[in-house]
Amino acid sequence: MFKKEIYLNRRNNLLSKFTTGKILLLGNIENPINFEHNTYPFRQDSSFLYYIGVKSPRLAAVLDTEKNETILFGDEMTIDDIVWMGQQQTLAEKADLSGISKVLPFNQLFDYLSKGKQEDIHYLPPYQSHNKLLLEQLTGRPANQLQPSAALIKAVVAQRNIKSAEEIIELEKAVDIAVDMHRIAMRMTKPDLYEYQISNAMQHFAQDQGTSFSYPPIVTKRGEILHNHMQFHQLYEGDLLLNDSGVETAMGYASDLTRTFPVGKRFTALQEEIYQIVLHAFKSAEQLLTSGIRFKEIHLKACEALVDGLIQTGFMKGNAQDAVMNHAHALFFQCGLGHMLGLDVHDMEDLGEQYVGYTEAEPKDTKTFGIKSLRLGKKLEAGNVLTVEPGIYIIPELTQLWEQQNLHKDFINYDFLKKHLDFGGVRIEDNYLIETDGYRRLGKYLEREIQEIYQLKDNPID
Amino acid sequence: MFKKEIYLNRRNNLLSKFTTGKILLLGNIENPINFEHNTYPFRQDSSFLYYIGVKSPRLAAVLDTEKNETILFGDEMTIDDIVWMGQQQTLAEKADLSGISKVLPFNQLFDYLSKGKQEDIHYLPPYQSHNKLLLEQLTGRPANQLQPSAALIKAVVAQRNIKSAEEIIELEKAVDIAVDMHRIAMRMTKPDLYEYQISNAMQHFAQDQGTSFSYPPIVTKRGEILHNHMQFHQLYEGDLLLNDSGVETAMGYASDLTRTFPVGKRFTALQEEIYQIVLHAFKSAEQLLTSGIRFKEIHLKACEALVDGLIQTGFMKGNAQDAVMNHAHALFFQCGLGHMLGLDVHDMEDLGEQYVGYTEAEPKDTKTFGIKSLRLGKKLEAGNVLTVEPGIYIIPELTQLWEQQNLHKDFINYDFLKKHLDFGGVRIEDNYLIETDGYRRLGKYLEREIQEIYQLKDNPID
Repeated sequence: MFKKEIYLNRRNNLLSKFTTGKILLLGNIENPINFEHNTYPFRQDSSFLYYIGVKSPRLAAVLDTEKNETILFGDEMTIDDIVWMGQQQTLAEKADLSGISKVLPFNQLFDYLSKGKQEDIHYLPPYQSHNKLLLEQLTGRPANQLQPSAALIKAVVAQRNIKSAEEIIELEKAVDIAVDMHRIAMRMTKPDLYEYQISNAMQHFAQDQGTSFSYPPIVTKRGEILHNHMQFHQLYEGDLLLNDSGVETAMGYASDLTRTFPVGKRFTALQEEIYQIVLHAFKSAEQLLTSGIRFKEIHLKACEALVDGLIQTGFMKGNAQDAVMNHAHALFFQCGLGHMLGLDVHDMEDLGEQYVGYTEAEPKDTKTFGIKSLRLGKKLEAGNVLTVEPGIYIIPELTQLWEQQNLHKDFINYDFLKKHLDFGGVRIEDNYLIETDGYRRLGKYLEREIQEIYQLKDNPID
Repeated sequence: MFKKEIYLNRRNNLLSKFTTGKILLLGNIENPINFEHNTYPFRQDSSFLYYIGVKSPRLAAVLDTEKNETILFGDEMTIDDIVWMGQQQTLAEKADLSGISKVLPFNQLFDYLSKGKQEDIHYLPPYQSHNKLLLEQLTGRPANQLQPSAALIKAVVAQRNIKSAEEIIELEKAVDIAVDMHRIAMRMTKPDLYEYQISNAMQHFAQDQGTSFSYPPIVTKRGEILHNHMQFHQLYEGDLLLNDSGVETAMGYASDLTRTFPVGKRFTALQEEIYQIVLHAFKSAEQLLTSGIRFKEIHLKACEALVDGLIQTGFMKGNAQDAVMNHAHALFFQCGLGHMLGLDVHDMEDLGEQYVGYTEAEPKDTKTFGIKSLRLGKKLEAGNVLTVEPGIYIIPELTQLWEQQNLHKDFINYDFLKKHLDFGGVRIEDNYLIETDGYRRLGKYLEREIQEIYQLKDNPID
């Protein structure tokens, strides 16, 4: 945990934005796998972690804006709990570490909230079904008619958007461990291994460092499948491996890195060519990072850089700017250039992209293929932490669909493209802090130049 | 998956027990960790796996007892799904593998069920909140007033209770991999390591074999904490390590093994003595396994064997049988001798212990400390698969409580006991198939004799 003052300040800041009502923050539970007492690893809700800091299950907190106090609702261990799970810090002791002196049994939450007016309870959008059910009971509304508080969402996003010095230290820790993890992956990867062996070795390393994967890693030779969690393929000489993986520290902060590298010692000629295009787009985007610029603008510049390269290689044709304006690049780059990063790998995604990545004045384009997957479009501020992750992906099914629909024939060389439908995908991704005048790449440098990657491949490990 | 006929037979068997109504089986979803799209590893519901066999999320099946047909409700992938997650087998293809020819979009489930009478929908008790919410919508009842069908529970338990030859093969596979995993743990454990390092190495091995942990493993020098999932302790010469861990095969079948061994090369004298007591109780229980005997009886015999040994060492006094009748042994053995094992590590625990481990004629004692934690009491049948896992646990908090309350002073030597409050715990556990005339230990033999353990310790690995 951070120092007590940090949590006190965060809560005071939040309370100062409200004059009436009760702010209700719900913690997570230990979610059942296949029966109630066989549970997944516990992960506290990120906003709860941010304001309350206590990592135990079955808690709720109320920030009472009128009394200006915080109450933690939760149950102390019974003797049966101690027999089965061991003596631990009491809840009162844990609460004290974040400056909370009032702890009540969980069930008193119902009484406590029933006293005020329904519309004066401010809560965030629930994503775990357990909390949807709890909110049904607390508010009397069916789960599909809950009314999360836009005012609360905005206030929370405004705070969590700007990372403090302590948070940056945690985020850099997460990046540093992920960098070592990625180097292990690059050095151990060789023909005949299976994808899952690399993923398992990375998990082993991450866990031995006291961290865990911050999301299910993508470790695949089918890098064109954007969220590919299948890892059953065997690797052969000539294959590319795309490794998109990061870790979460014990405090809950995430990293999110991607490298794409040869399974054997060297890329093929076409792989080198495409890799250089992506690397160039990556560097172009990186150079633009600074407060005041819209991330959507950087995204579009990166798209142009990708198209420029794709015109050189023969996959596309025409004018790069026109192609991007017409969304023709989305055949090769179907997703967004990056997203916020923090306590969540897609930071605050549970609070809604329209609040986290966009503004009311400049809302998200939710219809156009490609740009609809850009999670972050708004103007950057100093203290934002985000990913930059351009890529080129050749998806046979999508290519077939576009060609059948005669889409963008002026920009896409379908004949050339169809010779390379088995190419796969390349992505490069690092994590950045936005500063008033520029940016800082977080954590240790992870090899990204082709020659640097070859050096790692020339120093293999078992 | 098993052969198509197996699923057809299972469903026909189930359908034959009902003359009216619709049997509703709900699959699981991918549960969110910290936002909707960052999810825990998917695990299909075990009864759904048993009857339907399809391992994808967001499915439901209806076995219509009047039409004598099975319908699978679920959605095929869209082009967006394919771009993001890759082309996979269609749902219709997957359904066909278990002999289901009718597949409808998920949303049609609501219409389909609304046609009949509410009380004619038979469903099992939900444990994941997502399915509680779904059942609210499907039945119109609040989640805390759902009415799972006792008839359906009984019918499912009757089938899943008796493992078929194919299931035994899967269970033995799970045991075999767990045996190798336990040997790695014994051979790598040495002073200065941390508990989590052993757990992480086991997970790495299990995952490389295409399996996963079947439950969060207990790997601890504080073996007296029965469900201890903390693994932060460093290990020293003289410590005991208790390793309770098993794996789940890709088909979903679980193993559940425990060994307790020295961190250094050899047990201390007292550790050897206690280990021999547990091993003797373990063998006494094992010898009694056969169809027709009540498991509760075996449990009580094992308790007596434990108390006999504890009297020898000076921890207890008086007559062993009297001590067990009075539940005095529960200071050292607070839990049950074993439980059913199958698609769940506590097989069918979601369906209710009163149905799985007991009968209406001989219900569970839910009040008395010790026996209330025995998950299985009923008469064994050929085809049952279960664990045997006696142990001795010295819990300082519980000892203090009992002494303060003057409990069982005739049976417990508190003065002697208080000299050994830091002993920890010893448990030995294997997995068994009950046969008509006796039993079969499942899978490869895992070293359990002291000399066998010492041989492994003398062949360390890094």
